[in-house]
Amino acid sequence: MATESAQQQASTPASPSLPSWKDGEARRAIVQFVKDATDENGAHYVPPHERLAVFDNDGTLWCEKPMPVELGFILVRLAEMAEHDPALRDRQPWKAAYSKDYAWLGEAITKHYRGDDSDVKLLIGGMLKAFSGMSMEEYTKMAGGFLTEAKNPALNRRFRDAGYVPMVELLRYLEAHGFTNYIASGGDRDFMRCVTEEIYGVPPERVIGSTNALRYQSGPDGGAIVYREAPDVFDDGPAKPVRIWSRIGRRPVLAVGNSNGDIEMLQYAGGKGRPALRLLLLHDDAAREFDYVGGAEKSLDLAKKEGWTVVSMKNDWTAMFA
Amino acid sequence: MATESAQQQASTPASPSLPSWKDGEARRAIVQFVKDATDENGAHYVPPHERLAVFDNDGTLWCEKPMPVELGFILVRLAEMAEHDPALRDRQPWKAAYSKDYAWLGEAITKHYRGDDSDVKLLIGGMLKAFSGMSMEEYTKMAGGFLTEAKNPALNRRFRDAGYVPMVELLRYLEAHGFTNYIASGGDRDFMRCVTEEIYGVPPERVIGSTNALRYQSGPDGGAIVYREAPDVFDDGPAKPVRIWSRIGRRPVLAVGNSNGDIEMLQYAGGKGRPALRLLLLHDDAAREFDYVGGAEKSLDLAKKEGWTVVSMKNDWTAMFA
Repeated sequence: MATESAQQQASTPASPSLPSWKDGEARRAIVQFVKDATDENGAHYVPPHERLAVFDNDGTLWCEKPMPVELGFILVRLAEMAEHDPALRDRQPWKAAYSKDYAWLGEAITKHYRGDDSDVKLLIGGMLKAFSGMSMEEYTKMAGGFLTEAKNPALNRRFRDAGYVPMVELLRYLEAHGFTNYIASGGDRDFMRCVTEEIYGVPPERVIGSTNALRYQSGPDGGAIVYREAPDVFDDGPAKPVRIWSRIGRRPVLAVGNSNGDIEMLQYAGGKGRPALRLLLLHDDAAREFDYVGGAEKSLDLAKKEGWTVVSMKNDWTAMFA
Repeated sequence: MATESAQQQASTPASPSLPSWKDGEARRAIVQFVKDATDENGAHYVPPHERLAVFDNDGTLWCEKPMPVELGFILVRLAEMAEHDPALRDRQPWKAAYSKDYAWLGEAITKHYRGDDSDVKLLIGGMLKAFSGMSMEEYTKMAGGFLTEAKNPALNRRFRDAGYVPMVELLRYLEAHGFTNYIASGGDRDFMRCVTEEIYGVPPERVIGSTNALRYQSGPDGGAIVYREAPDVFDDGPAKPVRIWSRIGRRPVLAVGNSNGDIEMLQYAGGKGRPALRLLLLHDDAAREFDYVGGAEKSLDLAKKEGWTVVSMKNDWTAMFA
């Protein structure tokens, strides 16, 4: 064992390590997978252009409680609309936004992962109205402004500062070994793009996510991409592998998620005769973050059955936020 | 002028040049644009991550006559279906495929660019049936096989060998100056992906195009992406800027096309306060390729009005195919 570890260190002398990962099953699975994938003479070698890793975002790269970050943003926008139009104050989702009823919003997502989309549909309806007619430049400015200022109400830190340090280390570690990282999230693609490069080092062209329908509007200065009041893709569950293929045109070998919405993405990783690493994050750290399995029950069951690597935030990580 | 040219050569000593481009307005516009975009002290400097170029494929990077390459592929598949099912032989598009009526197929596309989608709809219906239920692996194998063998019936060379040498030089030239090239085509994305890396040096993740609807099918070996019998996106006209934004998350500064379907993509390049180069290829070389403006009339009118750079294949290029 000592010899193996020494060999491994010798083969990757200058690369980033995983300082916030305790020596345990999860860390060992990652290091071994990367070692095998980069060993040209090994049976599990993966050529550099096939070293593709896909990461969910909400609850995987950054904190999603008490509600996903994007909901915080939509909340602000919906409350603003209700401020101007009192008739909206009795209707969901404006009611929850206006009265700061965060619980209703968080629960809508949990219900979705349990198969009940009723509240998510109300939310989506509000979201469509919230941005309809807005140009991408306007949207990005508004979302970027929110992400510069707004705080997670439970953690007392900015939403953008609630990314997980060990995950950022993992992104750097993979890059150092020739992997290309993509974000494949149920969150809104263009919302995430405002900050993914800065927080995770993942540029806009490698962010896959949900989006409302868009249209091109001719005009001066090259025209604009404008939001329509219609849904397009909700990038969750079985939609994730399709979106990943559509964007990348190759099948990833590494997938990281934390909920039932990530199951198909995790299953899709690897493929016939190719190695795969599937990581499922377990939120079990009430002291430093949150302790919940709501919306992740099925994925945790599958992890046991199919041998996916469960990452315990409590036991596998020495640090949480920067 | 001599001094300027010397400076320019001095600033890019080791980069690929454009040997198949004659010294003329088009070549000069390209060289000047790239010079300005890479001049850190100039007013038209473009930072490397914003140096994005989008290229149409059919009729821009490779020959689209007597019909687009992908139609050749669909033809083979449709003829095969009609071979097995005689009832299909009297119905379009199987009739055209079975009787090798290339004119009907080419005209369907020309009609589309004139605003008449009737035949394109028949074609799409056939195409949807042709691949319905097929996994992406099966489709890619079939398309790759076609692209290895099949010949353009008019040029007497393989379809894959009917890419334009000056365009490949342009791709390399741009790359050498820090640009990232994307293909943004009305052609089927996963069809193009079989060869874009080899022919153009553009990897799968930088190919944007049309696609039929796909679904994820769970199963052994990580499941599969499978074709549904439904359309998804026809990446043409105003859909192009939307698809480009969706994929890249940034607005390109350089766009290259050859037809009315590229107008919005060409207009979208640049944006407020940013430089842009728009190239429109004119097929005017009956001796080496084809001479036609069908489906490009509006774009040629706009090129005059808006000052886009028209590239004459006859007058601006010394070579055509490899």
